Amino acid sequence: MNKTNIVIIGLGHIGGSLASSLKKVHGNKVSIVGIDQSKAVINLAKQSNLFSEVSTLQKSLKLKSAHVIFVATGICDMDKLFTDIGKISFNNKVVVSDVGSIKVDIFKQALKNLPKNFDFVGGHPIAGTEKAGFKNLVTGLFSKKPVFISGIRAKRGSTLLIKTIWESLGSHVYSVTPEKHDKIFAYLSHLPHVLAFGLKNISNKNLTKKEILKYGGTSYKDYSRISDSSEELWTEIFLSNRKNLISGIKDFRKYLNKLEILLKSDSADKLKKLLKS
Amino acid sequence: MNKTNIVIIGLGHIGGSLASSLKKVHGNKVSIVGIDQSKAVINLAKQSNLFSEVSTLQKSLKLKSAHVIFVATGICDMDKLFTDIGKISFNNKVVVSDVGSIKVDIFKQALKNLPKNFDFVGGHPIAGTEKAGFKNLVTGLFSKKPVFISGIRAKRGSTLLIKTIWESLGSHVYSVTPEKHDKIFAYLSHLPHVLAFGLKNISNKNLTKKEILKYGGTSYKDYSRISDSSEELWTEIFLSNRKNLISGIKDFRKYLNKLEILLKSDSADKLKKLLKS
Repeated sequence: MNKTNIVIIGLGHIGGSLASSLKKVHGNKVSIVGIDQSKAVINLAKQSNLFSEVSTLQKSLKLKSAHVIFVATGICDMDKLFTDIGKISFNNKVVVSDVGSIKVDIFKQALKNLPKNFDFVGGHPIAGTEKAGFKNLVTGLFSKKPVFISGIRAKRGSTLLIKTIWESLGSHVYSVTPEKHDKIFAYLSHLPHVLAFGLKNISNKNLTKKEILKYGGTSYKDYSRISDSSEELWTEIFLSNRKNLISGIKDFRKYLNKLEILLKSDSADKLKKLLKS
Repeated sequence: MNKTNIVIIGLGHIGGSLASSLKKVHGNKVSIVGIDQSKAVINLAKQSNLFSEVSTLQKSLKLKSAHVIFVATGICDMDKLFTDIGKISFNNKVVVSDVGSIKVDIFKQALKNLPKNFDFVGGHPIAGTEKAGFKNLVTGLFSKKPVFISGIRAKRGSTLLIKTIWESLGSHVYSVTPEKHDKIFAYLSHLPHVLAFGLKNISNKNLTKKEILKYGGTSYKDYSRISDSSEELWTEIFLSNRKNLISGIKDFRKYLNKLEILLKSDSADKLKKLLKS
């Protein structure tokens, strides 16, 4: 990779970890501008010494020299951000990418709001945890993790650049269509989160806090870890991928119905078969 | 603990780990007889050098000297086992205990099938994993794990003995009624397993195996670990605790209904509130 000017908009857990991981691998061969709306986060990021500048989008001086922009904000903020980015006259040809957990909606917004002279290469690193915020950044978070390239309106070179950046961090890069991406993650990530949030809700209604803390075994603890994720983030993800998710929820309700019938009719063999399937 | 003759019936993951953990802590102060129906398991157990005898229930010679019997078989086998144990003339006063995941049913069976001169102290160590079988035994499995004493028809000394045995292995011992136990675990263990089995079922229907293996993130992997548990065991547990479990499943269906309505009506604030609750 040649000397590359990278802008990261949104200095949360993913944005912060991306900055730190890039610096660790590439040192002075990358210059990173960090953009955030929160004063507290800006101050924290300044102390990290990862960035050549940390600022708001409006006040940044170095933004215009960007080669690559990673949008790492919540999904709801992306619409307006793409519009704002589209209005800036950059010094170089710029590639815009993102790290959002859903791809159909984000790609639509990018196509609508980014003028045609901007290349867009959607991305989604599968590396989030229940942690949030710049203060919890993890250097090397993306190493050996899958990253999806999904939703592309770009020259081949721009797509290759985004791919190369992730691979330089040790990620395994896959390309899929946004539609396929969102279907896969409805089942592998969004539905699992629905179930974990649901279990928390229902246990809290039926048991005391003390009982849950004292008696929860390994399986319950795995669920708690998942349901400790930010409600803010997951509300956005669930709504953005609601078509696929509703279809997953319907499947799940059917499964629960079937299970209930087998429990009521004491059908051990059929129950075993259902659990195995 | 004085020199104690312990019999473990059912040399699976829990029975095997119990034998190995007892030997590690107490050495020659305990003598353990291992009972199983499977020839293969008996041979494996003989090689472990943990037991003074390994045999079937029918052929055991040392069984009669037992002070304590732990029944560590599947729930469905316990009914008959209690009857068989009840017919043996032991040399000492004997305390019968178990390690089953549900307590109402097991306690009922014990009351019905064990003659009154047998003390019964039900137990449930919360230490199972997705592993199964004697070959996967873990020495120290019960250290720092909760153990429930639940369902007691015994003299105080017998209850104390069972409690002392578990505490000697580092377990935290709690006493609750069988009814309370089964309600708690419907929500903290059985329902989580229902959800994990359900997620596996639904993902397998909607995605290819390759997609699941390749793209499953941390949250999906936690579920897979749980749903790798034995269908045999969980069919028994689900059926034995069906009343509580059906009530949990009903709650869960209601939760999914509510979530679906909020997704359809795009109510971000209400959705966030539901996830937080």
